[in-house]
Amino acid sequence: MVDLKVTFEKTLDKLLEEKKYLTVKNILATMAGEDVAAIIQELPEKTGPLIFRLLPKEIASDAFIEMESDYQEKLIKGFSDSELTEILDELYVNEAVDIVEEMPANVVERILSHVDSEKRKAINQILQYPENSAGSIMTTEYISLRLGTTVGQAISLIRKNGIDKKSFYTCYVTKDKKLIGRLSVKDLLLSKDDDMLIDDIMKTNVISVNTHADQEEVAQIFSKYNFMALPVVDKEERMVGIITFDDAIEVIEDVNTEDIEIMGGMTPSDKTYLRASPFNLFKHRIGWLMLLMVSATFTGIIITNFENALAIQVVLTAFIPMLMDTGGNSGSQSSVTVIRSISLGELDFSDLGAVIWKEIRTAFLCGVCLAAVCFAKLMLIDRFLLGNEDVTLPVCAVVCFTMCVTVLVAKVIGCTLPLCAKKLGFDPAVMASPFITTIVDALSLLVYFSIAKALLGLG
Amino acid sequence: MVDLKVTFEKTLDKLLEEKKYLTVKNILATMAGEDVAAIIQELPEKTGPLIFRLLPKEIASDAFIEMESDYQEKLIKGFSDSELTEILDELYVNEAVDIVEEMPANVVERILSHVDSEKRKAINQILQYPENSAGSIMTTEYISLRLGTTVGQAISLIRKNGIDKKSFYTCYVTKDKKLIGRLSVKDLLLSKDDDMLIDDIMKTNVISVNTHADQEEVAQIFSKYNFMALPVVDKEERMVGIITFDDAIEVIEDVNTEDIEIMGGMTPSDKTYLRASPFNLFKHRIGWLMLLMVSATFTGIIITNFENALAIQVVLTAFIPMLMDTGGNSGSQSSVTVIRSISLGELDFSDLGAVIWKEIRTAFLCGVCLAAVCFAKLMLIDRFLLGNEDVTLPVCAVVCFTMCVTVLVAKVIGCTLPLCAKKLGFDPAVMASPFITTIVDALSLLVYFSIAKALLGLG
Repeated sequence: MVDLKVTFEKTLDKLLEEKKYLTVKNILATMAGEDVAAIIQELPEKTGPLIFRLLPKEIASDAFIEMESDYQEKLIKGFSDSELTEILDELYVNEAVDIVEEMPANVVERILSHVDSEKRKAINQILQYPENSAGSIMTTEYISLRLGTTVGQAISLIRKNGIDKKSFYTCYVTKDKKLIGRLSVKDLLLSKDDDMLIDDIMKTNVISVNTHADQEEVAQIFSKYNFMALPVVDKEERMVGIITFDDAIEVIEDVNTEDIEIMGGMTPSDKTYLRASPFNLFKHRIGWLMLLMVSATFTGIIITNFENALAIQVVLTAFIPMLMDTGGNSGSQSSVTVIRSISLGELDFSDLGAVIWKEIRTAFLCGVCLAAVCFAKLMLIDRFLLGNEDVTLPVCAVVCFTMCVTVLVAKVIGCTLPLCAKKLGFDPAVMASPFITTIVDALSLLVYFSIAKALLGLG
Repeated sequence: MVDLKVTFEKTLDKLLEEKKYLTVKNILATMAGEDVAAIIQELPEKTGPLIFRLLPKEIASDAFIEMESDYQEKLIKGFSDSELTEILDELYVNEAVDIVEEMPANVVERILSHVDSEKRKAINQILQYPENSAGSIMTTEYISLRLGTTVGQAISLIRKNGIDKKSFYTCYVTKDKKLIGRLSVKDLLLSKDDDMLIDDIMKTNVISVNTHADQEEVAQIFSKYNFMALPVVDKEERMVGIITFDDAIEVIEDVNTEDIEIMGGMTPSDKTYLRASPFNLFKHRIGWLMLLMVSATFTGIIITNFENALAIQVVLTAFIPMLMDTGGNSGSQSSVTVIRSISLGELDFSDLGAVIWKEIRTAFLCGVCLAAVCFAKLMLIDRFLLGNEDVTLPVCAVVCFTMCVTVLVAKVIGCTLPLCAKKLGFDPAVMASPFITTIVDALSLLVYFSIAKALLGLG
């Protein structure tokens, strides 16, 4: 696989060196748009646009929409008016919107003046929906059929008008613009009788999504149902567009990336890692780091208050990292599991009781096991193997008991906070490891020192 | 939305109370299989199967495949032979495989004896592929066309044989079982001339996947290309099946869930949260907790070795949690970002140099900012506001300098380990927060104490 790639790149280099651009074009013309885009963007500055212009327009537009926005901008600036019109003609409305969103104002103006008025209207409409809403990711090219159409008529209609439609395989039946049914090209083609009315074969239970619904809802619907396209309706239930499965896959990956970034203590970025500058990464990371660092003031205060006791029993300090980390890990296990289940639509606030009860039992099992192993570790490794005489039986008891309590507290907090965040309208993903760790750190220290005071008579 | 759900549930309860089962069936018959499955599984023990049997067989089978495996088992055990055959006839091969994989041996035997021999052969073949391989998730029902077929012939062939095919809209052209082209129903229907040969309109650059490829590769291909179906070929490049977009969406979500679980310090589970027992959760969580707890022995040893110095300057203890947490958070930001980019296929080991250089620059920005704010916090909050006289200028210098170095070390380790894991054939997701935190904890303590020794003259 890798060798093949190297061979291909060498061939390409050689052809370019010999200026055999037409051969290069012929090779690219057999490839998928995504790959053509990747190859052209890697070419020398002048050769890339040159070869792009040689491509058949269908492949050119497929490649164009897959390119990075600054390359798109560069190409657009080099296009003649007719070249621009040709490319724009090949794009679906949602693809044109994606491009317009990334371009500077003067390029946007030029683009909008080169699409027909219907498309311009559709683009402007989609641009008005809030970011990440269903309306902002839909497209308006779908096949709409009227009641009373026969199967035969529908098939010829599709064969006549289908070429410009993003969803070719699902047709929607509307009445006064309201969505009343759907049927697939499969239903039409497999129907035995061409004179049958579509009214009789369409499915009337159509699941749709509102223009203002969040893209997370779109992702959940596509994960749950095997839809090829999802209709989008406005407040008055009138159909305004569709979201197709391929755009949905992109949304699903985006939503997942966003969740993972937030769970990793970052604000989400829309740039890929290799394209993000260090300053860009810095901007997305510093906020959480700063917040969490400052909130560590609490752990500092707790330790300071216990300083005198710690000075007497310095050995207790040695176990602070272990207790804090185990607490943090236990809490983040619960929070991550719950956050993921919320994203997948499996859990909501009404499950809180069941979730807490489940986590308490899990925490009990984990806590007892960890405490037992911890006891053995302290006695065998720390006391006998490393010969640390300060690790006495009472110290072991304090550490192990703290372990149990910390795991319990961490797991309950870890599962509760994401569900509460969801209920309050925040993103549950915020309540992942970094945040939970900070809270659990403070609590585990409090537990540790309270137990130490009680059992060792310090303080 | 929620109110509607409650109203619907009340209506359903009332109908069931009055034993109006046919009305219930008629309501369910208008719904999507996924929703029917959810409703039936919630019904009282005897009513559920009763209503299931009343459903039209197409909807029954759609609902059946969406049910939890223990409910499926219960239903199968209650089925007569003819009922079982009817349901099995409606299932695609990959759906039958999914069910067979979850059932006890005697049920599997009964299922296999009630499918026709061709389907049985296909099921057995798919069962032989390794878990999570492309072969294990593919299905064998696709439309295959021969070279020399005309568009008109192809359309009538599809209309005749399409009903049992999972991928209705993409047809594959094979020669001696080898895949040589693909064309879509859209290509066929939009072709102006029914007598044209498919040889002339098919696309010959077909991207396919090997039966033994991991499902992550399948997820990556579907995320990159807008495919409706992906052909699966064996070692000899013969076509053996396809993976359709709806199954791919499931794979994408599974792969993401697995990544997130591993990143949260758990072994992946295939049960949903609400269905997993506490013991089940315990099993998936205890391994990592135990490993990380025991490895905290190192942090313990480091602190113990510095005990005497800590006894003199107890104030240093107060900043251990802040330094460790900031290090852990910085490291996990980098590792999470890199792990996600690897999963999306944007990064591999060859980018290591670029990644490290980017992280060093980001770490510098983050480190300097954090140190500056930390200095202000220590002087203003800890020294003046809280009146802690032990927070002297040299102590501040030690803490802030440690902060800078820790962030740098954490970010470099955080970005390096996932790429190395990938290179060595491990799952990069293992190198997420819990693991990174443990390493960074130990290193940040070493840095802290070394700097303290040097600047404060302790030790």
